[in-house]
Amino acid sequence: MTSSHERQKKPHVLIVGGGFAGIQCARELATADVDITLVDRHNYHLFQPLLYQVATAVLSPADIAAPIRRMLRDQANTRVVLAKLEKIDLQVRRAYFPNAVIDYDFLVLATGVTHSYFGHDDWRHLAPGLKTVDDALDIRRRVLTAYEAAEWEADQQARQAKLTFVVVGGGPTGVELAGALSEIALKTIPKDFRNIDTKTARVILIEAGPRLLAALPEKLGNQALKDLTQMGVEVRLNNQVTDIQPGAIKIADETLPVENVIWAAGVRGARYVEHLGIELDRQGRIKVRADLSLPGHKNAFAIGDLACVTDPKTGQPVPGVAPAAIQMGQFVARKIKAETAGKKDSGQTFCYHDKGGMATIGRNRAVASIAGFNFCGFPAWLVWSLVHIIPLIGFRSKLTVIFNWIWNYFSLSKSARLITGKPPMKVKEALSVIRSDDKAESGR
Amino acid sequence: MTSSHERQKKPHVLIVGGGFAGIQCARELATADVDITLVDRHNYHLFQPLLYQVATAVLSPADIAAPIRRMLRDQANTRVVLAKLEKIDLQVRRAYFPNAVIDYDFLVLATGVTHSYFGHDDWRHLAPGLKTVDDALDIRRRVLTAYEAAEWEADQQARQAKLTFVVVGGGPTGVELAGALSEIALKTIPKDFRNIDTKTARVILIEAGPRLLAALPEKLGNQALKDLTQMGVEVRLNNQVTDIQPGAIKIADETLPVENVIWAAGVRGARYVEHLGIELDRQGRIKVRADLSLPGHKNAFAIGDLACVTDPKTGQPVPGVAPAAIQMGQFVARKIKAETAGKKDSGQTFCYHDKGGMATIGRNRAVASIAGFNFCGFPAWLVWSLVHIIPLIGFRSKLTVIFNWIWNYFSLSKSARLITGKPPMKVKEALSVIRSDDKAESGR
Repeated sequence: MTSSHERQKKPHVLIVGGGFAGIQCARELATADVDITLVDRHNYHLFQPLLYQVATAVLSPADIAAPIRRMLRDQANTRVVLAKLEKIDLQVRRAYFPNAVIDYDFLVLATGVTHSYFGHDDWRHLAPGLKTVDDALDIRRRVLTAYEAAEWEADQQARQAKLTFVVVGGGPTGVELAGALSEIALKTIPKDFRNIDTKTARVILIEAGPRLLAALPEKLGNQALKDLTQMGVEVRLNNQVTDIQPGAIKIADETLPVENVIWAAGVRGARYVEHLGIELDRQGRIKVRADLSLPGHKNAFAIGDLACVTDPKTGQPVPGVAPAAIQMGQFVARKIKAETAGKKDSGQTFCYHDKGGMATIGRNRAVASIAGFNFCGFPAWLVWSLVHIIPLIGFRSKLTVIFNWIWNYFSLSKSARLITGKPPMKVKEALSVIRSDDKAESGR
Repeated sequence: MTSSHERQKKPHVLIVGGGFAGIQCARELATADVDITLVDRHNYHLFQPLLYQVATAVLSPADIAAPIRRMLRDQANTRVVLAKLEKIDLQVRRAYFPNAVIDYDFLVLATGVTHSYFGHDDWRHLAPGLKTVDDALDIRRRVLTAYEAAEWEADQQARQAKLTFVVVGGGPTGVELAGALSEIALKTIPKDFRNIDTKTARVILIEAGPRLLAALPEKLGNQALKDLTQMGVEVRLNNQVTDIQPGAIKIADETLPVENVIWAAGVRGARYVEHLGIELDRQGRIKVRADLSLPGHKNAFAIGDLACVTDPKTGQPVPGVAPAAIQMGQFVARKIKAETAGKKDSGQTFCYHDKGGMATIGRNRAVASIAGFNFCGFPAWLVWSLVHIIPLIGFRSKLTVIFNWIWNYFSLSKSARLITGKPPMKVKEALSVIRSDDKAESGR
């Protein structure tokens, strides 16, 4: 409010979204002669590749998230706003938030993607996806509560439905979730229950395509399939979910009684994107130009998962992964820097430097494709661990995560097994067996 | 369900509540020839003395909580049930849960206490208390969101109300919360904000009685007062809250504009206790007999914070602290053991072994009274840290907490500064200053 004088002549860069792309863009502009406003609907930056470990009770949210304010506190040209974007008017260069508007000279949209249920939005509350911290805590709550409910379910079929976990989508998130759910059932909790054998839990991974990890070389997809199968996960390739109802999922023509479905299948851009007047791809992502700007708006960009762009080198779409987001953030920041410094840059094209990809499957099991080398098993698992620990924001997170992993590795215990946030489930009628047993047989 | 044969002749001990008292009682009965059912409405045991550190963004919930199942997994005579107690029928020895009933031979009530608003239950949503993990996350969310909202509040008075934090109650929880809130404002976040000076935040601690920490020696209460005052906390003794409204609190006759009130003043027993047909004290706790049994029911006990009992040695009421709860759990377990083993124990009396008390105030500041010695400052702070780390359940928690404390100590940063669980606040009208400033002064 008092800083308006300093801002007087500087171009205003509005970055919406504090994920990998948005944060990188802001950081890259730290020394630029601009004013930056970074808006996010959460107050934290999330290290999303490890989010499934929050869902599966290995890590706490604070282990993989850092306050955006803290991350950018020393960057004097940047202010951080906690708000949810409602609408953009590209013509007048204005962004609308609840009860407020922000005008910009440069706009960088980095709001990522959310789950897509392919037109079946009624599946949302039956099959939660994994994009935010609250999603992860919700999935954790559902998984842990399922075992609690199964423990007191007298009906065999109903019990099996509670002990069946279906993960929809065979990308990295789906593979990692399925592996972790299987480890919980087989290794973490068997001794904790008295009435159920948690080893009888079924984990089913459903993929519509012909193989797992479609973004990685075929060999690694096959290896992941082999590993998961060895770990007791039922992998169903070429299978499509046709319906989800409370207590049941329909796969092709087969109906499976199941209480727990997790959605890791499809993504789409946020709703506000539909009203930009810009062409979107099938997934609702913005079809940006080669320099990541919006067609017809040289001063507005989309980066990260939200951007649909083709890599000129390979002709393939740039994948929605963290390294691509970071590279896009850098690219756009440099473009804005050049332009505000009065240097003309014309016809630049974003090129994606693909460093490879990887997915972890379980303890000592992972697959990785790096610089053309494909490997799996323990070496891949070690590389995966290193690659995911190094960029973790802040010294604290890094050590805590390492520590929790080592602890988890040797003890096989998941230390964050807390059910929070909602009243616990109701104990089912089956609990009355305690009464009848005790009463009848002790003769009281 | 299949274990009914083994249980056939064994007495059934029902323990309700998995806090310090209930867990201790169950553990003490591990080798007894009884069947134990431990019921809790949460799936975790909570190390409550450190809960304020979750509320003030130092620790994550998983750092101070452990799954009850895990804690008791190796205890073959014990099963764990996740359910909320609705009603007890002492005459027929039966406990009612949603959709289920459990019969018992021995009953141990260890459900603790909840906040009491002294008849002003409408204050509850305006002034949250701190008893559960969800309470702590709620308070954390409110505190962090208050600063976010203040950052964009144009009206000076409204801004100050958002930057005012009132803690009601000068016991250990209130003192610890006030100290931590002051540290956040003065040391953790000043650099994170652009428009507000977080050092102008006011932290006010209100106590109805004449001094702080009434359960500790007067000298230490005075020391705490001195320390808090030095840290910038406004302590108001002999002050009573007479009303709480949205945006304002009334203390005696003065009305203070304030957006953030935290309740650490009163406690009471749960509602089901009122229907037991047993005499309660003013706070709704059960007036137990000297052996902790319920009057007229030799086989039913109340332990922990829920029990109102006088220490025969001192004539003083046994305080609602963890050591007392643990001692009561032990005492009742031994009593049940003796009785089920056929040994008559008659007229036993519970004696509280008071090991002292302590409260931490801030970095290097604490007060402690142990074995008759009173001390304060850094030595007390060190002792407080040790005393609170040693009993933490599970190796993992212990190391993580130590690590987070050390990190917090040297970096002054709170690493768990995440706003989770609810949609973020709306950016206020004040945000429009961004537009007017930019527009007007950059002349676009």
